[in-house]
Amino acid sequence: MREQSARTAALVLCIVSYLLVGAAVFDALESEAESGRKRLLAQKRSELRRKYGFSAEDYRELERLALQAEPHRAGRQWKFAGSFYFAITVITTIGYGHAAPGTDSGKVFCMFYALLGIPLTLVTFQSLGERLNALVRRLLLAAKRCLGLRRPRVSPENMVVAGLLVCAGTLALGAAAFAHFEGWTFFHAYYYCFITLTTIGFGDFVALQNDEALQRKPPYVAFSFLYILLGLTVIGAFLNLVVLRFLAAGADAPERAARPLRPGAPESRGPAHRAGLLSISCRLHRLELCARDNPGFSPPASPGAGGGQTRRPPARRKSI
Amino acid sequence: MREQSARTAALVLCIVSYLLVGAAVFDALESEAESGRKRLLAQKRSELRRKYGFSAEDYRELERLALQAEPHRAGRQWKFAGSFYFAITVITTIGYGHAAPGTDSGKVFCMFYALLGIPLTLVTFQSLGERLNALVRRLLLAAKRCLGLRRPRVSPENMVVAGLLVCAGTLALGAAAFAHFEGWTFFHAYYYCFITLTTIGFGDFVALQNDEALQRKPPYVAFSFLYILLGLTVIGAFLNLVVLRFLAAGADAPERAARPLRPGAPESRGPAHRAGLLSISCRLHRLELCARDNPGFSPPASPGAGGGQTRRPPARRKSI
Repeated sequence: MREQSARTAALVLCIVSYLLVGAAVFDALESEAESGRKRLLAQKRSELRRKYGFSAEDYRELERLALQAEPHRAGRQWKFAGSFYFAITVITTIGYGHAAPGTDSGKVFCMFYALLGIPLTLVTFQSLGERLNALVRRLLLAAKRCLGLRRPRVSPENMVVAGLLVCAGTLALGAAAFAHFEGWTFFHAYYYCFITLTTIGFGDFVALQNDEALQRKPPYVAFSFLYILLGLTVIGAFLNLVVLRFLAAGADAPERAARPLRPGAPESRGPAHRAGLLSISCRLHRLELCARDNPGFSPPASPGAGGGQTRRPPARRKSI
Repeated sequence: MREQSARTAALVLCIVSYLLVGAAVFDALESEAESGRKRLLAQKRSELRRKYGFSAEDYRELERLALQAEPHRAGRQWKFAGSFYFAITVITTIGYGHAAPGTDSGKVFCMFYALLGIPLTLVTFQSLGERLNALVRRLLLAAKRCLGLRRPRVSPENMVVAGLLVCAGTLALGAAAFAHFEGWTFFHAYYYCFITLTTIGFGDFVALQNDEALQRKPPYVAFSFLYILLGLTVIGAFLNLVVLRFLAAGADAPERAARPLRPGAPESRGPAHRAGLLSISCRLHRLELCARDNPGFSPPASPGAGGGQTRRPPARRKSI
């Protein structure tokens, strides 16, 4: 118990430090540019105001209208296709926000929808990820056999490397596709895929927002939806593989020293002993052992995973 | 294997149906209102255009400026406090998008930052959630002893009910606080907390965007950060409790019928038998048994986890 509390405290300290470092770096990278953009915007704004002689109130009204009109410019967001897209962003927790419920009943339904949908999605991606890992393991075994190895075996390291390659490939494939369909640079499309599949989903880039694609380009719409769902499976399966490995390594070491695991030991010696044997570290250690031996095994996956942009590359409001 | 594939297929079918139903309901709830708002906006826009007589191009420029200026209006987003806030939204995958990296180097750093930060956050919340569940279990045991029960025992159902109450309480507390500080209605603040703590993070409501709070109200800033991190712990711990229970129930049934679990059975009868015994369902079943017996146990948590608004309640552009 005390070890667990110490480990928790250490992790919290780690996170706080990580946030402080991140904040410092983002400040250094973005603050300067923010000031520059702010000055430029203020300049352009006063030029327009001088040209037309807007009153302060009318100008604010114009700005408000512009902000509210933005999603409409991107097409109908709440027809079936748009609603389906929105529903995906809810249950996968991507949450671009390119559209958000405007009515109170929409907000209420959204919350209940998420309440049931998110756990359902987690369970589904766990299942899909496990199947994917099983498939990858089978393919690796077959490949090793083809290479003529006498006792082919797929190690955890093989799986991690394979996982990395599949993830990178998925991101690159998506980047190429969205760069082509949305007119983004490859880098911005890659960034979009990354932010989507980690479910961060800023919404600075959102697919299907150009040329009323939601209504006019059903094949592209279908591709986008499939990409998000398959991509999340891939990232989730890999994240799980890596995170569980770390959990097993971290939780295991101090307790493994105290209680060596004996494969033949009977389990029933009383509840205390059973509880001891079946402590978290033991369980995780066994999970790890079985991950090696059992091709079908994959621990519960938590999906990790993002947005479109208007035609004009100078970013939507969020990229300040 | 075949059962696992069938289960996966069933889950996928389930998700697709869930999305179809969700899309239909969102369409019904929001489409009408969207058309209404669009008409109203177009009307107001033409009134202003008639009044000032600006060209189509200048109007588009105005709209672009308004969109780009919006985050600036909410204050400096990339000073240290704002960057810290942004860093939180990245590693927790909330991703409001109220600010997003404008520079390419910011985008690159953001991706690497997320790559390491997200797994680190998952592990930390798993650890914190486990400690929280342990504390809740201890409190429940103590409460039952106080009530004079002779053999106090905390059942999984007790834990789920307690979890629900803690989650609801967390949301209500946050709603009250943000309604007060941001000037939102209680309902909108509750919606904000929900969307934040499930990490959907639309960004239609974002805290700390009024009155330059990031620079001027350090206590409120600290409160907001703490609320997000503690709230995610609570929601993550509960989600895990519930999701694992479902995983154990779902994965267990067909295999349990085939292989009854005998407490005293030795484990080493050969790799096939061991693999069979240590199949996923067996493991999950044991995890469930130990969740009952071991006060400290809690399965890996995936954090689930909200947005600010400008002073004028008529929503930011996203709530169309």
